[in-house]
Amino acid sequence: MSQGAGGERMQEFIREFVLRELDHDFGEIPLGALDDAAIIEGIAFTTDSYTVKPLFFPGGDIGVLAVAGTVNDISVMGAQPMALSCAMIIQEGFSGDDLHKIMKSMNATAKKAGVRIVTGDSKVVEKGAADGLFINTSGIGKRSGHLDHNIEMIRRSRQFKWNWPNDSGVADGDVIIASGPIGNHGIALLSFREGYGFETTVKSDAAPMNHVIAEGMKVGGITSMKDPTRGGVANLLNEWADKSRVGIRIREEDLPMDEAVISACEMLGIDPLEIGNEGKIVMAVVPDMADDVLKAVRSKPEGKKAKIIGQATKKVKGVMMETHTGGKRVIEPPVGDPVPRIC
Amino acid sequence: MSQGAGGERMQEFIREFVLRELDHDFGEIPLGALDDAAIIEGIAFTTDSYTVKPLFFPGGDIGVLAVAGTVNDISVMGAQPMALSCAMIIQEGFSGDDLHKIMKSMNATAKKAGVRIVTGDSKVVEKGAADGLFINTSGIGKRSGHLDHNIEMIRRSRQFKWNWPNDSGVADGDVIIASGPIGNHGIALLSFREGYGFETTVKSDAAPMNHVIAEGMKVGGITSMKDPTRGGVANLLNEWADKSRVGIRIREEDLPMDEAVISACEMLGIDPLEIGNEGKIVMAVVPDMADDVLKAVRSKPEGKKAKIIGQATKKVKGVMMETHTGGKRVIEPPVGDPVPRIC
Repeated sequence: MSQGAGGERMQEFIREFVLRELDHDFGEIPLGALDDAAIIEGIAFTTDSYTVKPLFFPGGDIGVLAVAGTVNDISVMGAQPMALSCAMIIQEGFSGDDLHKIMKSMNATAKKAGVRIVTGDSKVVEKGAADGLFINTSGIGKRSGHLDHNIEMIRRSRQFKWNWPNDSGVADGDVIIASGPIGNHGIALLSFREGYGFETTVKSDAAPMNHVIAEGMKVGGITSMKDPTRGGVANLLNEWADKSRVGIRIREEDLPMDEAVISACEMLGIDPLEIGNEGKIVMAVVPDMADDVLKAVRSKPEGKKAKIIGQATKKVKGVMMETHTGGKRVIEPPVGDPVPRIC
Repeated sequence: MSQGAGGERMQEFIREFVLRELDHDFGEIPLGALDDAAIIEGIAFTTDSYTVKPLFFPGGDIGVLAVAGTVNDISVMGAQPMALSCAMIIQEGFSGDDLHKIMKSMNATAKKAGVRIVTGDSKVVEKGAADGLFINTSGIGKRSGHLDHNIEMIRRSRQFKWNWPNDSGVADGDVIIASGPIGNHGIALLSFREGYGFETTVKSDAAPMNHVIAEGMKVGGITSMKDPTRGGVANLLNEWADKSRVGIRIREEDLPMDEAVISACEMLGIDPLEIGNEGKIVMAVVPDMADDVLKAVRSKPEGKKAKIIGQATKKVKGVMMETHTGGKRVIEPPVGDPVPRIC
C-alpha cells in the first residue's frame, strides 16, 4: 500500500517499474521529470486515477476530486486547462443514484474550473473485481498570456531556462507561499472512514485552483507550483529540494492550519505536513514579487488564507522547519501517506 | 455487465449517466458525438481503461492492448498520435515480475506505434479492491499533412463539412473496407479464460494501426474509420448507420475471417460480427478511391488481408448482410459483447 501513497516508497516503485521500463526523455517536461504534468509540443498532459475511500466524504466526493485533482495538475504547470477525459471502472450493481450524484459533481466542478469533460470510457467489472467505482481523469492544457507574462517576470530577476514553472525551477531565495490551511482533506476523509469515526467539523478542501493560479501568474515570478496531495507538504517540499538542488526552510508558526485539523492530528498522532490536500497550491516565487503574488492569491476565495511559509535557501540541506519552540526539525519525505486512498 | 460491453445497453447507460449529466457539446467533435476521440482546438483526445481478463493471453497482454487501443482511437480520427498517459490501479501484492513484463509490452508497443508514454499515475489498493491490475491510457493526437490530404480528396468527390473523418461522415455509396480478419482477439481471450479452455491456434490481433491508417490517408478519401472493439463489427456498422443516417450492406462471403475463428465461433455459438477486435480498422471510403485505399492498406503487414466488405447505401435501412446462402440478414447492434472484459 505504501508504494501508492505518494512518499519515498512510491518513488522507489516508480524508479523500478516506470523509469526502468519506459522511454522517459520525450518532451519539454518529460516523463522522467516526474512533474505534475508532462509538456509535449506545447501541450500540458496529465493523468490521475481516483480510488478514494469512501466515495462520499465531508466537503466532496470522488467526482469533485477527479475533476479538481486533474485541473490542478495541469494548472500547476502554468497551463490553462483545455479539456478533461473521464474513464470509469464500475463494479456491477453499483448504485445508479450514487453514479448520478457523482456525475453531477464532476460537471459542476468542471464548470467551476471553466473546463469541459470531452471524452470518456466506461467499463463494468464483476462484483469483487473493483471497489465500487474508480475514476480516471486525464487532462490537457495550453500556454496562455498569463503564463508568458509569468515567465517573463521571472527572467527580469534571473536566468530561467524553462518555458513553464516546474519542479526544478526553484532557486535560492525564492519565497514559498501556501494558498491556505493544510491537512483538511485527509482529516475529513479519515473522520468518515470505517474504524476511525471521530467527530470533527473538518471538511475536504477539494477544489479546482486554476483561477487562483491565473491570478498569481498575472503578477508573475512564480518559478514552481505544486499541489500537496499524496505525501502532503512534506513530500512536496522535499521534491523541490531534491529536483531544484536547493534547501528549503519553513516556519511552523507560519503554516496555515485550522484549529480542528490541529486537534485531530494531535489526537491521531499524525503529522499534518504529511497529510494529503486536494485544494491547495504551494508556490515558489522570486523574492521581490512574493508579496504581490500573495496579495493576488488572497484576492480569490480559495486563496484568502494564503501565507508565506518559508524560503528556499542554500544555507540548509533538504527541508528544515523552525518549530514553535524555536527548535529545528528536519522534514523528511514521508515513507507513505498516513491516510491511504485519499484520492 | 452488459452495460460495459459495448452494445445497446452501454449506449443506454451512456445516455442516462453521461449525456444527461455532463455538458457535451464542446469542441469540433464533442463528447456528445460519442466518437472514438474528441477533437478540441485541433487536438484529438481520448481515454480508455483496460480491465481485460486474463492479463496475459495468446498474442498479447494488457500492456499491448492499453497502448494499441488508445493509439487506434486517436488514429481513427485521422490524427497523428502525439503522446499517451498510463495510469495503473494495482492490487496490493501484485507480482512485480508480471508488472515488469507488462511495462515492457507497453514500451515496445508504443515504440512500434512511434509514440511515447509521457505522463502517468499509480495507485495501490487493498487485496479484493481491484482485480489484479487495471490500466488507463489516454492519448492526444494532432493534424498531419496526410489528414489534410485525406480531407481534400474527399472534397473532390463531394461536400464534407468536417475537418476530420468521423462517425457521421459516411455517405451513400461509400465503400467499406476491413483491414483484416475479424474475431481473433475475443476468441483468443476466451480460449485462455477459466471455465472455457478449448484448444485453438487463434492469437489476439492487438496492434497499433496508425501506420496502416497513415498509408490509407496518403491516398485519401476516407470519410470515417473505426476500430471494431467492444460490440465488434456489428456494433461499428450500426453506429455508422445511425450517426451517418445511411444504410450499410455487407456480404458474408467477403468478410475476412480465419478458419480457426470460424470453427471456434461455431463451436461456441458466437456471432463473429459481435466479437471485439483490437488490431483491426474498418474504413468508409469515397467510391472512386476505394481500390487505391485498399491497395495502400494491404501494403502494410497489419493490413495485408484487407478486403472490401460492403457499401453504404440508401437502398437499405440499418445494416443488412447478404449471407453465404444468398439470403438477407439484418445485423442488429449486439445487446452486449458475447465475450465480456475483452479490453
